[in-house]
Amino acid sequence: MPIITITTDFGSKDGFVGTMKGVIWKIDPTIQIADISHEIQPQNVMEGAIALYRAAPFFPKGTVHIAVVDPGVGTARRPMAARIGEHYFVGPDNGLFTPFIEGAKKDGQACTFIALDKPQYWLPNVSHTFHGRDIFAPAAAHLASGTRLEDMGTPFSDPKLIGMPKPKKTDFGYIAHIIVIDTFGNMTTDLPAAAMEGREVRVRVKGQEISELSASYGHKPVGSLVALVDSEGALEVAVVNGSAAKTLDMRIGDEVEIVFS
Amino acid sequence: MPIITITTDFGSKDGFVGTMKGVIWKIDPTIQIADISHEIQPQNVMEGAIALYRAAPFFPKGTVHIAVVDPGVGTARRPMAARIGEHYFVGPDNGLFTPFIEGAKKDGQACTFIALDKPQYWLPNVSHTFHGRDIFAPAAAHLASGTRLEDMGTPFSDPKLIGMPKPKKTDFGYIAHIIVIDTFGNMTTDLPAAAMEGREVRVRVKGQEISELSASYGHKPVGSLVALVDSEGALEVAVVNGSAAKTLDMRIGDEVEIVFS
Amino acid sequence: MPIITITTDFGSKDGFVGTMKGVIWKIDPTIQIADISHEIQPQNVMEGAIALYRAAPFFPKGTVHIAVVDPGVGTARRPMAARIGEHYFVGPDNGLFTPFIEGAKKDGQACTFIALDKPQYWLPNVSHTFHGRDIFAPAAAHLASGTRLEDMGTPFSDPKLIGMPKPKKTDFGYIAHIIVIDTFGNMTTDLPAAAMEGREVRVRVKGQEISELSASYGHKPVGSLVALVDSEGALEVAVVNGSAAKTLDMRIGDEVEIVFS
Repeated sequence: MPIITITTDFGSKDGFVGTMKGVIWKIDPTIQIADISHEIQPQNVMEGAIALYRAAPFFPKGTVHIAVVDPGVGTARRPMAARIGEHYFVGPDNGLFTPFIEGAKKDGQACTFIALDKPQYWLPNVSHTFHGRDIFAPAAAHLASGTRLEDMGTPFSDPKLIGMPKPKKTDFGYIAHIIVIDTFGNMTTDLPAAAMEGREVRVRVKGQEISELSASYGHKPVGSLVALVDSEGALEVAVVNGSAAKTLDMRIGDEVEIVFS
Repeated sequence: MPIITITTDFGSKDGFVGTMKGVIWKIDPTIQIADISHEIQPQNVMEGAIALYRAAPFFPKGTVHIAVVDPGVGTARRPMAARIGEHYFVGPDNGLFTPFIEGAKKDGQACTFIALDKPQYWLPNVSHTFHGRDIFAPAAAHLASGTRLEDMGTPFSDPKLIGMPKPKKTDFGYIAHIIVIDTFGNMTTDLPAAAMEGREVRVRVKGQEISELSASYGHKPVGSLVALVDSEGALEVAVVNGSAAKTLDMRIGDEVEIVFS
Repeated sequence: MPIITITTDFGSKDGFVGTMKGVIWKIDPTIQIADISHEIQPQNVMEGAIALYRAAPFFPKGTVHIAVVDPGVGTARRPMAARIGEHYFVGPDNGLFTPFIEGAKKDGQACTFIALDKPQYWLPNVSHTFHGRDIFAPAAAHLASGTRLEDMGTPFSDPKLIGMPKPKKTDFGYIAHIIVIDTFGNMTTDLPAAAMEGREVRVRVKGQEISELSASYGHKPVGSLVALVDSEGALEVAVVNGSAAKTLDMRIGDEVEIVFS
């Protein structure tokens, strides 16, 4: 059975996502659909990009990932679909797929970008404010159920990219940035664990110093501030059974200093 | 594969909706299930009616829509199922399906209403407080997997209707009402765009005047108050990349004045 | 089609649950997946246990239930799978399945417990912080798609149990405890209705007395404080069309006194 994922800033109270599933199943009722997140902060393209980037690799080859965080809906911004590695992506051409495209370039993987400009793959009536329903859901359903990407529109080569956060090398180690604060208040940074490999590190955050990396949460007493490698292989700051973000009053974009010993 | 949608005021923290899916899959594990919303305000039948009415038409023919916003659960109010046009509906007979029934009457579509009074289509034990699980989920699953509607109970012809909001014609245009405030704070009204067709309009809301309709959000600067036609073809008031409801401190039922030039 | 349920404290904003669905569908894309709740209070094993216990029995035989409320992730606590009656369970061995195990003992049902210690049923790389994705999701998918439980690890017989709340018998009736407060603010207790069978009862809660049991919410005026038997057969205290928890300012664990007349 074909698989589609959906990532949006639509929330879950209004039925927008349910409506998209109706559109998808009208085209192919056998498609499996997974919600990644619908609680991306409204219009926060980078947050949507990061959420999808952390989840998508765990889906099978051929999965079609819809992402709709779309402040430009109804304007000239391009609706697009892409094949990057063995996954497909559908959404507005506004930078949502930046980490996948940058990752593919780094790994030498092929990318194909198609402007979704063929109305036969849309709903018959396209609104100005809900392309998730009218363009992206039907295009993704056609793609998932076997339509060739190349048949669905016009190729292009210059997808919009956004500047993703990157750690800064310093004389003593790195300055990293908080890029995700999860439900528990754990704070993931943009520093890959590989950058710390084989080094002893201290982590300084909001005037506090963490003297070493822990293996997981449960190795220190409840309430301790800990640094560890998170499940995607990045440096994370957490409070055992508590919220690091609340305890330290920190936000996305805030800095974390890594000092090699 | 058959399709069921679910719209409730159950929230997502208690497992009520998951439990309904278990009941459905015990009867037919091939059924696809889409959540429309479970964040309808508790006991707000009208909000549930509107949420389902905006989503249901995008599902395929034959879809079974369960709606449970049910302050009268366990009392004499009738459990019902209906065929309206090419869709099926299952829930309490308390007005939840009013917009579909009124729409069908206007379009001259046939409606069939059945009181769900045959216990063989319920769970063996029916509680007094959770008919979503004990009556509506199993009835919907039987219907979706091929049982004839007419076999599931006794026909009736007087479903309960609730008064849906309607715009008032004035000497200068219309007084419309806010009927939906979405996650973004965009405010949809009960005025269909057709009522404004071919006219130049100004929109007055909370002492502010919007001098024209915009095509979408992205055509005005961030922070602008705009009026536009929403994705269901109704007049909407929004703030570009902001929340109109918060900016104007408005609620469901509040008035918006439309003045023809 | 095989069925998996998922109960976690992961919330819905971070994509953790979507990621687990990707892992499951990579192993078997035909599996149906139902979310029970992802809003268990962080690290609250008992709340997770109760939520799953109330939903699981309504799923078909053979369903695999994943539960991940896992403060000990990455430490020596055992990952486990179990067959209890005709259902399967997968998660950390930390007490999450206590009510099922106690129920099986009482009913004389067989239980099989397996430590998930065979890496061929995990993801190739196992993180220290997300066993939901790396161990429990793939193990559950293998189990749901036909792998024998006994082949997936080493049997054991001493699963960790937690102390579940139980009502206290008094000279006059019972002292019960609030164990669930649902979305509506209805408060379910640990007192089974069977304990009140054939007796007239008064219910005392926070200095107020309820003089009888109601059949459902709709039999008393809006705003009334009522006691009734909930949909799982336990004593519940509610406010008609209101929130008992807010009205009485009560919390999980608070006492309710039942007095036989």
